[in-house]
Formats: sequence, structure tokens, C-alpha cells
Amino acid sequence: MTQTLSRDFTALFTPRSVAVIGASNDHRKYGNWLSAQALRMTGVRQVHLVNKRGESVLGQVPLRSLSDLNEAIDLAVITVPVNAFEDAVDDALAAGAGAIVGVTAGFAELGPEGKAIQDRLVRKIRDAGAMLLGPNCLGISDSTTQLTLASNPLPAGRVSLLSQSGNIALELAKFFERRQLGFSRFISLGNQADLSVSELLAACSEHDGTDLIAIYCEDFGDGRAFVAAASEARARGKHVVLLTVGGSDASVRGARSHTGALTSSADVLGAACRSAGIYQVSTPRELTDVATALLAYGPAATTRVAVIADGGGHAGVASDVLEAVGLQVPEFPPTVSAALRQALPPSAGVSNPIDIAGAGERDITSFASTLETALQCPGIDAVVLTGYFGGYGDYGDMLAADEINTAYTMTKLAQHYGKPVLVHTIRSDSDAARVLATGGIPVYEAIEDAARTLAALAHVPTGTYELTVTDPASPVISDGYWESRELLRDAGIDFVPAQLVRSSRQAVEAADAIGYPVVLKALGLLHKSDSGGVALNLTTPQELEHAFGRMDSMLQAPGYSVEAMESLDEGVELIIGVQTDPRFGPIVMAGLGGVLTEVLADVAFALAPVDYDTARHLLHRLRSEPLFKGVRGRPAIDIDAAARAIVSISRCAAAHPEIAELEINPLLLTSAGAIGLDARIVLTPSSNNSDSTERNI
Amino acid sequence: MTQTLSRDFTALFTPRSVAVIGASNDHRKYGNWLSAQALRMTGVRQVHLVNKRGESVLGQVPLRSLSDLNEAIDLAVITVPVNAFEDAVDDALAAGAGAIVGVTAGFAELGPEGKAIQDRLVRKIRDAGAMLLGPNCLGISDSTTQLTLASNPLPAGRVSLLSQSGNIALELAKFFERRQLGFSRFISLGNQADLSVSELLAACSEHDGTDLIAIYCEDFGDGRAFVAAASEARARGKHVVLLTVGGSDASVRGARSHTGALTSSADVLGAACRSAGIYQVSTPRELTDVATALLAYGPAATTRVAVIADGGGHAGVASDVLEAVGLQVPEFPPTVSAALRQALPPSAGVSNPIDIAGAGERDITSFASTLETALQCPGIDAVVLTGYFGGYGDYGDMLAADEINTAYTMTKLAQHYGKPVLVHTIRSDSDAARVLATGGIPVYEAIEDAARTLAALAHVPTGTYELTVTDPASPVISDGYWESRELLRDAGIDFVPAQLVRSSRQAVEAADAIGYPVVLKALGLLHKSDSGGVALNLTTPQELEHAFGRMDSMLQAPGYSVEAMESLDEGVELIIGVQTDPRFGPIVMAGLGGVLTEVLADVAFALAPVDYDTARHLLHRLRSEPLFKGVRGRPAIDIDAAARAIVSISRCAAAHPEIAELEINPLLLTSAGAIGLDARIVLTPSSNNSDSTERNI
Repeated sequence: MTQTLSRDFTALFTPRSVAVIGASNDHRKYGNWLSAQALRMTGVRQVHLVNKRGESVLGQVPLRSLSDLNEAIDLAVITVPVNAFEDAVDDALAAGAGAIVGVTAGFAELGPEGKAIQDRLVRKIRDAGAMLLGPNCLGISDSTTQLTLASNPLPAGRVSLLSQSGNIALELAKFFERRQLGFSRFISLGNQADLSVSELLAACSEHDGTDLIAIYCEDFGDGRAFVAAASEARARGKHVVLLTVGGSDASVRGARSHTGALTSSADVLGAACRSAGIYQVSTPRELTDVATALLAYGPAATTRVAVIADGGGHAGVASDVLEAVGLQVPEFPPTVSAALRQALPPSAGVSNPIDIAGAGERDITSFASTLETALQCPGIDAVVLTGYFGGYGDYGDMLAADEINTAYTMTKLAQHYGKPVLVHTIRSDSDAARVLATGGIPVYEAIEDAARTLAALAHVPTGTYELTVTDPASPVISDGYWESRELLRDAGIDFVPAQLVRSSRQAVEAADAIGYPVVLKALGLLHKSDSGGVALNLTTPQELEHAFGRMDSMLQAPGYSVEAMESLDEGVELIIGVQTDPRFGPIVMAGLGGVLTEVLADVAFALAPVDYDTARHLLHRLRSEPLFKGVRGRPAIDIDAAARAIVSISRCAAAHPEIAELEINPLLLTSAGAIGLDARIVLTPSSNNSDSTERNI
Repeated sequence: MTQTLSRDFTALFTPRSVAVIGASNDHRKYGNWLSAQALRMTGVRQVHLVNKRGESVLGQVPLRSLSDLNEAIDLAVITVPVNAFEDAVDDALAAGAGAIVGVTAGFAELGPEGKAIQDRLVRKIRDAGAMLLGPNCLGISDSTTQLTLASNPLPAGRVSLLSQSGNIALELAKFFERRQLGFSRFISLGNQADLSVSELLAACSEHDGTDLIAIYCEDFGDGRAFVAAASEARARGKHVVLLTVGGSDASVRGARSHTGALTSSADVLGAACRSAGIYQVSTPRELTDVATALLAYGPAATTRVAVIADGGGHAGVASDVLEAVGLQVPEFPPTVSAALRQALPPSAGVSNPIDIAGAGERDITSFASTLETALQCPGIDAVVLTGYFGGYGDYGDMLAADEINTAYTMTKLAQHYGKPVLVHTIRSDSDAARVLATGGIPVYEAIEDAARTLAALAHVPTGTYELTVTDPASPVISDGYWESRELLRDAGIDFVPAQLVRSSRQAVEAADAIGYPVVLKALGLLHKSDSGGVALNLTTPQELEHAFGRMDSMLQAPGYSVEAMESLDEGVELIIGVQTDPRFGPIVMAGLGGVLTEVLADVAFALAPVDYDTARHLLHRLRSEPLFKGVRGRPAIDIDAAARAIVSISRCAAAHPEIAELEINPLLLTSAGAIGLDARIVLTPSSNNSDSTERNI
């Protein structure tokens, strides 16, 4: 699935010459900040400042217009007011610009007109063979090509940052600097009028100077393209770490106001990240911590952690915090404990957690030898050192020197054994802590940050997404119950035996064929349960006739369904379905059905269609999964059948873009298989040609 | 319930003279560190160093023995090796010491003998009218009396710290210093051979110089005394913040190794903290953050939060993080949004979160006016300011001065409106951030820390604990099923009608009286379900006779119970019970019963006995609580009856100290009431005189 970029990004990232259109001497304006940054490139590439009034800018005499220039430019940054933006674009294109960075803001405030202007300009720019970053962005920088066209200077490093927020980028820069991390590229996304987050992600995944791609984004545009680009980056060994919003009503409200973004729900974003192998984080500090650890160790299935502390307090607190984030602190095998018992003071804790009990004060190298013992332990995936190490240097120069040497030894041990080592220290600002960090061991000032980071590393995203091209099937035109049921049966899902009937006599004949007890459902109703359109557990022809008579006189439904009555006692009710997200397309869901559905909200989501393994994983992620294995002596249910039903409904929905929602509720799982008891379709408004408005039992 | 201290702590906290026994010139030893700290008190009180070899210590000529002294001392710190400890205690008592601080370690390593030595010394010390802190502690300090007898100097302030770990205390000191917090008292708990955490907590809650008490503890000794002391502190307006371990198997293992502590489960500790109104935290940074906020604002039911940011990114991230910790970011009323719309730029977000959209750069006082608008909003309990504020000073001296003024104004606004204001800033080290912190507004470098702190403030512990003295009832001597049932019926809990029978004929007579269908249970079996000792849903005399015959020939049980068969379909099954914790005594639990018990582990705990309100709150805390209200058209269940049953079982267990466990599972809740379907008792081993070993259905 390796893709190549559809456009040439040389003018954007490696321009021979740049121009700042809207250069200003007013130190409160972007045109000033960007000019100052641009002038840092003098000597590396041609830099032109353009100010239409010809006012001196930062001591330079600017051009009044690009047309005064007798040479072509590669990249133009435009910071003029919104009403002058189009002219500036025309000038830039006339000067041969291959890339335009639109810092100018104010398009959203113009409403639909702003959108129309943007669209017209994008066409014009593309027709000229150029590309537009922004508008409403903060600029761009590339430390590998010495490109400094962002409003603030940023530390150099191996991380590409794509951000829809300037201030989030500045906060990340602060956290990155403290961790000795930096940026290969910083790309401010702005309105993504032309260049989208997906296209820019693809460009960065091909960038040799980039090892990891960090993203803050609110609007993903074509969500499937984003997932494909992230999958491609992952295939190239470049981890993608995503910070986004949409986990609350408030942030959705805010994003709409901020960028007019069509946000997707947290469930959908989670599904997209799992599919693409993206690490999702909630805050700038988490992004920094996870990026640091990924750059140091890559993804690692590190669930079994050894804890080393000097003091029982730190040992205990770290153990609790690690287990609270889902990691394990398992007891050591007796041989390991015996080796530690030999090496450490009598009062030491030698199982797991290890409390070296003052050994550090007597011989600071105890930390390194204890670390090596823990790293050698076969049942241990990672080590967390917590507490005082890093602070012993306070007790004198000799101990400080020994502590630094020990820190250096620990970095070599971590490299040698290839298992993640994370250090929490009460003195994260000490020389020993700096030696650890420089040697590739992430250092944390709070144990909970170390624990959460290790948990993030351990939860390696599955990355199962395959860009499945499903040929559309012939469209469904009715969303009636019976049609929903038939569509899903054709897709391979079993339903209880049922017959469509229109009279009491037909109903009794159907029941005779199906066998009692039966269920009678009226067709063509919006809420058949609420309106009395469902009669359960009819055990005799008399009961059925009576129910039919009452229902028909009350509802005059166009048809009725007689169905076998299944006992729910020995099975588990599931709800499975597919909904369509405006950004990420069809999303399949599976959850616990029945009386606990609303109470537990135990549901899992994935991009549709899914294969069998992803469907199994979806079920595995439910909290109520143990129910499937049979609790309290019940037989285990046929989980294969459940997974197959999820595959089928996901494929069915993906082949029917005219369907907005598709649902089976309940899907009854027993040891004998999975069987649908009810179904519903919702067509997208434009596709809805049905005369039936039935939606639900 | 106001208590007075049983002992006089003057010699411990306000000694006129102190002696360090075991003073040393070896800078790697406690005897050296403590001597250095003690000498800082010269001029405040008499300080005597004692070294038996008479070696010069820190340039001072020490005493060889306290007997060389012609005056009495108040406080002796003993740092000699463990085998010389008893002699040193004798010397100190002979010199009139009213308090002894035992720094000496190594008692645990002596095993039972070490415990015996400690016990003997404690008796001797108490007989002399003195008290012992430790042994195996790091010392004590009191900044209000200039007492400096801890191994490290600590920042002065209004927090008393009681700690069972020296290194945790040092980490807290680092975090405290950064927050401009400090300690009124630091008390290292050590082995608590004489002075317990409870007694010291009581002493600190009477201390005028202390506003808040922070505790790190692994072993609570008499847990009820601890709860009583914490409740008393709360009653005096002094918040107690507790950091402890026991949330994982690993930390329990570690604590046993560290201090030999008998740890309680996290569930029990949580119940104790709720009862006592203690704020429980998981890490030193959390303790620091919660203490800072409590000192600034006290407890506050702050669930509805306004977010103010400069930039949509920070606004969105903060909203998501706040809602993730259980707080709300509600939409503003239209009038508030309209006022903001007037004051802020067109691109601002004016609902909630507020994005001031660059207004800060144009006029930094916008932050203060926006804060005031948010604080005035009646539906808002607290405000979180997040992002760039604190960093504007980087743009020049003028803006820096204005930012500082604005910060000062914000501290006044927070005081005026009396609602918590918390600030997250990308520049927590700036002058403006310092002005905020000094003015009482907590400042955070990461938004998640601000959110978690606000959530901790919002979850005001209920503090319902009353020291209920229950007279013991006449002891239960049998743990048979029938006796369990009768005990609980006497306690006022309804059970299904049942009769004790010994023959098939009696069984049928009983069933005729009770009404079919019935259940038949064999008595006197350890696991009656597993061994075929339960037959459900017997609908006729024939079925009952058949079941009786089969059961009696197989099991020859000493008796049988015939009981009414209840339908579980329309009710909710609960499990309620009481277990005895070795530290905290009887703990009542309520949880969802039935097939989902093990899967969901949805249980809540409280110290027994409980009153009706606490029982209701216990049910309210269950995740499955919505089930009680009737979902999917089921009738609401009688939650009052469930609460009354919990009160009854909790009182019953509290009146029967010989009972280790007491359980009703299931307790069937319907709209008609709460009815027990099965019961069991486990007696504490010494109380178990029963010839029956039945435990469970």
C-alpha cells in the first residue's frame, strides 16, 4: 500500500527563495514576527520582504511589490489583511511561487463568502501548479532545510509537528525543550483550504529528517485519507501521535466556534486511531511524554514491570500507580529474589517492587546492579526506577560523581537489554538525571507521568486498517423492518424464522409452520413496541388470533410478521450496528444489549468494513466479555458466530453508502450461534424513498 | 465528639532542651545530620550532643553520657545502633526526658525479639510519663517552635506532615517548595511503637500553626481511632489529605516487606476516608496539588466549570480533560454569551469554553474582564484559565507589566467572588504566574493537573462517620444456613417464607403452606449448590418428593429448607454483606448480584454500622444504580427497602464481633420491597463452635 505523493513539496520545504508579503515594522503583527524569522535565513536562501507602502521593516528596505523583482520566487508567505489576500496571491503566482503560506486570517468571519473566496483561490493556485498552506495559519519551519517561517523559533529535532493551534504548538515546544526534544518540521495547518492534514502527514512520513509525527488537529477533512496516510507513516516506521478534541460536548462546541470544524465523536476518533496505528493522547504533556518514550524505545508490549526504589514508600506508590493504569508488577521468580537478597541489605524488599533500603547511600552502584538483575529477569518487560536516585549528589561531590557514573552505566544497560527503562526522580533537574535523559532514558518528575507513558507504549495500536474498496451494491430503497431483515439475511446473518402475513388466518398458518410460542410484529410503524405493535410469547392459535385482532383493529398495519419466540434466558443479547460519520465514513459498533445497554454503555467501535480478527477484537474490548465465556455455569456462547455477524453487517453497510444507520438489536448469542431478533435501517435523507417510516421495535 | 489529647506533647514539640544521643562526625550518618540540624537551634533552646567516645562532632565537644549533665532534658533523639538503644533510653529517662525520638533502626530485622524489645521499652517509657516517636524514624521538626530535629531542613508553612517514609517526605518538600507551600510540623512516624499516627494526627489537629494535615502512612494501627482523629480534625476545620498504598498486590507485598504493615485493601481505605472526610490521593504531586487548592479555597462542590483560553486548541483540550475527570463545562446562558460577544473579537468563542481569540495580545486586561464575567455567571462554580496567559510578558516589557497587573486583578476577583479559579499556563515560571500563586490562585504547568485537582475539590468526602458504640449482642455460636437466616430475620430483614423440614412428608406439608413453586435446600453443606443440595422451581408435590428423595439419599443432610420460589425476572439482585478488616473493623458492602456480579465487580463499601443516609449513598455509588430506577419499562424498585436492609445487616455485624463475614446473596429488590433469598455467616476461627460447615448455596 505504499503511496507516493501526488505533488512536489520542494517549494514548500526547500525553497531557494522566499518572500514575506505584508512585512511590517509593527512588533505586534505577524508580518513583523515572520519578517524577523525570515531574515534569519539570509545567507541560506534569498529573502524578500514586501510592504506596499515601502516602509522600512526591521532596518531593511522592502519591495513595494513582488513585480519589482526580476527573479522568480519559490515560496511566498502572505500576512496582509483578508481583503488584500487575493491580490497578494496573484502577485505571488505571477512571481512564479510554487507554494504559498497564507497567514492571513478572517475568512471564517466572512461566512459563506469567505469559503467561496478560499475555494476560488485554491482553484487558481492549483491551476498554476502551486499549493497553499492555510490560510489562517502561523507559518512553517523545517530545521533540516533551515527554513524559519513560523512566528516563533522552535527547538530543532526529529519530530514533525502538524498543528491546527498555534498556542498548543508553543506549549509543546516548551515541554519538548525540557525533554531535549525538538522539531524537524513545524507546519501550522490553518484552514486546510488546499493542503490537508492528510497530505502534509504523507509529506512528513517521506521526510528523512523526521522520526515521529505529532499532530494537533480538530478537523480531519477526508477521515479515510487521514487514516490511510497515518497507516502509511506507520508502515514506514514513523509513529504518529495525535492530540485532538471532541471528547466532550464543550470541546465540540468550542471546535465549531474555533475552526468551524465538523468534529467526530471520541468513539469514532478512537476507532480511527486504532485502525491506523496512531497513539492518541489527551494533553500536550502526554504527547511529549509518549513521543519521548516512542523515540527511545518504539512500541513495546510492556505489561510486566519491575519497580526499583530506595524506600518502601516510593516502591508502594509506584506499584499502585502502575497497576492503576493497567500494567502489572508481578512477583519475581525465587532465583531473582535470592540474587537480590544476596546483594542488598537485610531490610531490602527483594520481590517486586524492589526496595534497596539504603543501599544507595552506602554504594550508589547498587542501583545499576539491581537494574541489571531486573532487566535480566525473563518475566519482566520494562523497569521503572522511582524516588531518590538523581538526588544523592546533594550529599557531596564524591557521591555526585558516582551517581553520574551510575546513571551512565544505567543508560548502557537499558540499551544492552533492549527493554524500556523509565526513571522518576525527586531531582529531575540534577546532573545525573540529565545524563540519563541524554543517554536515552526518559526521566519524569512525577511517577504518574512515567506510569501513564509506559501504559501508552504498552497499548500498541492494532493498526488493522486496510483500505478496502467495496463495490457499492444496488441501493436499498426502503427502510422498512422486513426489508432491513432481508438485506441482513442476504448478507449472511441468521434471523429467527419469520413469515410476512396480512390476515389472522395467514398468521395462524405461519405459526403452525414455525412452531409456538411466537411473536407478532406490526410492520410500517415508527416505534412498534411503544405503539402496541409487538406481542410476545403467544403460545396458542387463540392467543395469536386475539393479538392479531386487537393489533389490526388498532393499527391497521399494512402487514405483520409472525416470528419464532426465542428464550433470552440462556444467551447474551448483543447490539451490533453501523453508523456513518461525516468524516470517517461507516463505523461498526458492538455492545452489550438487553436491559443493561443504557446503564453500562459497554460498546466498542471500529472503522467499517472489518475483517474477522478485528471483529473478534471488538468483542474482546467489551467490559462484559467474560459473559461470553459462560459465567455461573452457563455454557460459553458461540463468539465466532458473533464475530462473523459483525463482519457481515460491516460489509453490508460499506457496500450501501445510501444507508446512514444499520442495526440488529438484539442479536442473541447462545452456544448454538448468533441470531438476529430485530433489525432496522435508516437511509440518508436523500436516499429515503420509502413509504414506510418504521424504525424500531 | 470533641476529644482532648490524653497526653501532654510539650516535651515533643516545644522542648526547652534537647539532646542528640549518638551524635557523630561521620557525614554519612544520621547522628551527623541530626546534630547539624540540632545545632541550628542553639540560642533558641539548650542543645546537647552525646557521643560515648567523646569525639568532637561538628567542631563541638560532646558529652560522653547524659549523666554528665547536671540538668534535666525535655527531648532526646537517639541515633545509636540497635543494640545500644535500650541503654540510651534509660539514660534519657534518667535525665528526665519527657519525649524520645528513636531514629535507631533494625528492630524489624530482629524478628519477634525486636518487637518484644520495643514493647518492653514502650512500657518503660510510658511508666516514666514519657512518650516515644519511632523508632526507625527520621526525626521531627516544628517550624512554629523552631524545632529542627529532622535529617533534612524543610520549608516552613502551615501544613503538618506525618510520614512513614523519609523519601516521600523529601519528594513532597520539593513539590511544596515549588508551590510556595511549607510545613508547620514534620513528624516521621517510624514503627509507631508508642505514638501512633492517630495520636499524632490528633496532636496536629489541635496545633494553632497547622491549617492542613498531610499523611503518608502504610500501617494505620487502630483504624477506627485513625478515623475518629481525622473526623475530629475535619470538625476543627483542618483538612486531612492522605497518600497511602494498598491499591495493588505489589504494594501490599512491598509494604509487608517495608514496615511489616498489615495493609488494608483499597476498598477499605476508601471507605475509611469517605467516613472521616479525608481527601485521598495517589501520588506526591497530587497531594501537593490538592493541598494547595484546599488551602486556597477549602472544599467546594465545584462541578460546573467555565473555561477561558486564548485559542481554540487550549479551550478544547481543557474541556475534554475536565469532563474526563467528571466535571461539567456547561453552556452559558444567552445573556452571558451576549456580554462576551460584545467584549471580545468576532472570532471569539463565547459560549463555554471561552476562546478570547487574540484579545489578550490586543488588550491583556481582557483576561480579567472575561474572568469576571465568568465568575458572575450564576451557573458556574469555578473557572479554569488555560494556555498562554503568563507567557505574554515574553513579547516585551510593557506587555509584561500589564500582564502582571492583570494577574494581580485576577487574584482580587477570585477572592471577591469566592469561587475557585485555577490557572494552567505554558509559562508557570513567569512573573505573572508567580503573582497569581502568591495571590492564592493555584498555577499548573499541565492542564490535567488543574483538572484532577478541581475534581478532587469537587468530591467533598461525605464525612458521615459517627463513633457508634454498639453493645455486643449475645454471640452467635453456629454458622449454619438456618441460623444465618434467623439472625438476619431477627435483625429486621425479610426473607422468603421457609420451613425447616426433615422428611419428605414434612416437605410437602411445608410446600402446601407456602405455595408452589418452591425451592428445596439441604442444610449443613459447605457448598450446597455445587453438591446438588439446591433444587429450584419445584412446581408439584411429586417434583418436590422426587427432589427430596434424590437429595436425601445422596447427601443425608441433617435438615432441609423448603422455601418459596421467587421470580428474578422483574427484580434486581443485590449482594449485601459485612466483612471484618483487621485494622478498620466491620466493613459493609453492597453490590450488583446475579450473573453480572463477577463480570462487573460493581460494589461499594462503608465502615459499619451505617445509618440510612450512608446506606442510600452506598447504593447511589453503584454504576448499575440506574437499574434501580427501572429501565426498559420495568417498575422502579423499592430502594428504601434495600437501604434499610443494608442498615440492618451492618448493625447486626457490628453487634457481633465474633462474626468475620455476613452476607445475603441474593437480596432480591422489586417494587414491593427487598427480600433475602440466601444468607451465610463465617465466624472468626476462635468463635466457631458450630458443627455445621455450610457456607454457601
